[in-house]
Amino acid sequence: MIVPGPRAVLELLRTDRRRVRSVSIARTRSDATLDEITSRAEAASVRVRHVEPDQVNQEAGIESAQGVVARADPLIPVPLSSLLDDTRAFLVALDGVTDPRNLGAVLRSAAAAGATGAVVPRRRSALLTPAAMKAAAGAAEHLPMALTGGVASVLDQAARVGVWTVGLDADGDTPIYDVAVADRPLVLVLGAEGRGLARLVRERCDVVARVPMVGPIESLNVSAAAAVACFEVARHRGR
Amino acid sequence: MIVPGPRAVLELLRTDRRRVRSVSIARTRSDATLDEITSRAEAASVRVRHVEPDQVNQEAGIESAQGVVARADPLIPVPLSSLLDDTRAFLVALDGVTDPRNLGAVLRSAAAAGATGAVVPRRRSALLTPAAMKAAAGAAEHLPMALTGGVASVLDQAARVGVWTVGLDADGDTPIYDVAVADRPLVLVLGAEGRGLARLVRERCDVVARVPMVGPIESLNVSAAAAVACFEVARHRGR
Repeated sequence: MIVPGPRAVLELLRTDRRRVRSVSIARTRSDATLDEITSRAEAASVRVRHVEPDQVNQEAGIESAQGVVARADPLIPVPLSSLLDDTRAFLVALDGVTDPRNLGAVLRSAAAAGATGAVVPRRRSALLTPAAMKAAAGAAEHLPMALTGGVASVLDQAARVGVWTVGLDADGDTPIYDVAVADRPLVLVLGAEGRGLARLVRERCDVVARVPMVGPIESLNVSAAAAVACFEVARHRGR
Repeated sequence: MIVPGPRAVLELLRTDRRRVRSVSIARTRSDATLDEITSRAEAASVRVRHVEPDQVNQEAGIESAQGVVARADPLIPVPLSSLLDDTRAFLVALDGVTDPRNLGAVLRSAAAAGATGAVVPRRRSALLTPAAMKAAAGAAEHLPMALTGGVASVLDQAARVGVWTVGLDADGDTPIYDVAVADRPLVLVLGAEGRGLARLVRERCDVVARVPMVGPIESLNVSAAAAVACFEVARHRGR
């Protein structure tokens, strides 16, 4: 698996949960983060190569690797049941988010807000491509992820074990600020860019919440909506 | 000015604040938004061309124009003083945000949260490139923007007219949830990706707030932090 960008590579080495095979750093770059990456890689006997800047982007497969890319063993998904069993469960489920940068950005915000896991469908969904790993900025190393057949079955399984399901949609009934179950075990369900939640998913959620728009704009980017909703959950839980 | 993407082009035509010179639509696409774009363009006597999908991206200068791009007259900046004079001022000032997609995403979230204007330095800042306009998804048509020499002088001018300045930084003293001045006229100051607020800017802000991190992640993407902060201001003002 390709892991591009200083933050993502640093967290990969710090967390030390999977084998790192190599690190490539642009010769032209030098800063404290790259120094820490180099010393952690050396301490873990990971090969560090200093290469031309273009080659870093080429290895990363994206144009914005910011001077560093690692190759690592794949992330191992966890069973959904183990995520749902957590008495403080705060999961983020993505229903049809197809832009890898949005997927990565959602993981980063969710992990920063204290989410305990992420649920991603195997099909019709962005995967952990280099662009997603870059945007996640290390969050994928911390946030356990379950891969599932579809989000509707996730909602059924959550209902069976008493975990609340909160859908997020521009047309939701409940302002996100007023979601009474925010401090219970919950799954926050995010819909696709543009289309929002699928009807079947929406109908099965216990609550369908919205980020209340104040201005003339009709909808938020899914990663912005996710950030607002995740930190609303965090705010409720912190009180 | 190049305006790519369905939402951005639709808002451009809906708001009708500047002359639209042409619209290009991919032949292969068809949906309700593109239909509305076509009928609004025709009603405004704007030339609509149906072209190959590749040509849309080529005209847009980005790879994700999603089948439509417009050419329009430039946006006209407004004087900072007019933004500060608003008794309900809720401005977003960007200090060194250099990624156009982040600039666009901040404008979109700010407009959706009811911001009354944006302040962007002329130098060392992302500009309204096609990528920014696409990410703004029409917000740039609604949100008045002032261009300034630097953010420090914005803070001085705000102080002189009694507008509060709230910096946002990962190391801020005050949790964003507790910013007591959120319902006063204010400027929310966002720092650069990675580095955060410049020292001089930070020292001149009345309050330096943070989005409190709960999980293991050290910082948010600037557009995620902006979304959380803008909707916190909206939540305070809505009460």
